Amino acid sequence: MTKEIFYHAVCPVCVRAERDILDLIPENQVELIHLDTDKTKVKDAENADVKSFPALVLSNGNVLHINFGAKIEDVK
Amino acid sequence: MTKEIFYHAVCPVCVRAERDILDLIPENQVELIHLDTDKTKVKDAENADVKSFPALVLSNGNVLHINFGAKIEDVK
Repeated sequence: MTKEIFYHAVCPVCVRAERDILDLIPENQVELIHLDTDKTKVKDAENADVKSFPALVLSNGNVLHINFGAKIEDVK
Repeated sequence: MTKEIFYHAVCPVCVRAERDILDLIPENQVELIHLDTDKTKVKDAENADVKSFPALVLSNGNVLHINFGAKIEDVK
């Protein structure tokens, strides 16, 4: 089963969105990536067409940009 | 059980987001509101602090603005 991937940049908007997403989707179905501790994944997010954070990359490849915490350029 | 409410304005971004949301959340857990056929609900969305569409208003009251299809002013 391909997991959804939730990228965020640990901003207040991001932290609240993570809590809300984990209320919606079973924890074993989503991989959480905090870009402050894992900068190598910024390139993965960019390749997945993520433009801002928080963002949920779905198993079908679509990206749900959720609210707005930071632009991807802010995190590079 | 309080349902999540997914508001959208029937724009291409909205239609795709609705499909993605219904892949993520069981259909019986979300109420779909299409604002082109139900203008009376625009006020409800505004009262829930929705600023743009598509938007998912969670049962805890938080709003997840997803991608960007239209501003609420565009739908009034």
